Amino acid sequence: MAQLDDLDRAILRILKEDARLTISEIAERLNRPESTIHFRIKKLQERNIIDKYTIVLGKDLQPKALALVYIQAETPIIEDFLERYIRHIMKTLSLLPNVLVVARSGKDGVIALIGEENPEKLNRFVDETIRVLPTLRRVEVMHIDEFSKGEGLLGFLVSV
Amino acid sequence: MAQLDDLDRAILRILKEDARLTISEIAERLNRPESTIHFRIKKLQERNIIDKYTIVLGKDLQPKALALVYIQAETPIIEDFLERYIRHIMKTLSLLPNVLVVARSGKDGVIALIGEENPEKLNRFVDETIRVLPTLRRVEVMHIDEFSKGEGLLGFLVSV
Repeated sequence: MAQLDDLDRAILRILKEDARLTISEIAERLNRPESTIHFRIKKLQERNIIDKYTIVLGKDLQPKALALVYIQAETPIIEDFLERYIRHIMKTLSLLPNVLVVARSGKDGVIALIGEENPEKLNRFVDETIRVLPTLRRVEVMHIDEFSKGEGLLGFLVSV
Repeated sequence: MAQLDDLDRAILRILKEDARLTISEIAERLNRPESTIHFRIKKLQERNIIDKYTIVLGKDLQPKALALVYIQAETPIIEDFLERYIRHIMKTLSLLPNVLVVARSGKDGVIALIGEENPEKLNRFVDETIRVLPTLRRVEVMHIDEFSKGEGLLGFLVSV
């Protein structure tokens, strides 16, 4: 785990809330000299504790209907085929703009977060793009209706 | 859907990659006058197309073991109890630092993204904090082994 002291953490929390704040604004909030804040941020960047500065997009660009889909492949006789098949599904899904996240789950599973304009489009996408994949054992669709934590991830993930 | 032209989209894509770039750097990349870029970004902020500027934290602070957990409550006789019970589970999980995302799925379901230092801690958390919740019908744990899209969400979601 990275060694961070209270000042590092305070700076990171402030930048997470608003990465546009200037060094002098952060220094004033934390009641520390600008040179200290400047040095700390430089170090946090060099150590890759801060990996990137980015923007979060607002509601207008975010999908209105969301679902997590768990896809489990049929275990085939030739094990090498399963590996290549899972890679193929992951790659195919990753290329689609309405698929926000693609992850592997175990030897035979893929998890995808799908975002669409409305529930009808979402269901159609699942039926026409996912359920038609050959040799699946199981497709489980978990609709996401509301977040109580982490909602910002939509504005972070959505592409333009 | 928000009305965005090619220039707006180009600016948003650049800021997503590096939100620290100055207006003159963006203007140079896109071969447009600084005044145009300045005006466009101002509008994108005013319209809340750009909701926030933030940082993504690096690997060191990210959890090493991840799982999605789907929790389904037993449908009780009194419907009002189910609603309050689901709210209670969501609120409780949202307060925990190792729970990165909490979302509602349907009337009786909750989805949570759990991040821990290692798989043992993750399993212990699921056993000791989630499986012990009363009146559950089903707890499904989907371990996440690898991302092929959206991996950056961990550095976005993790708290310091």
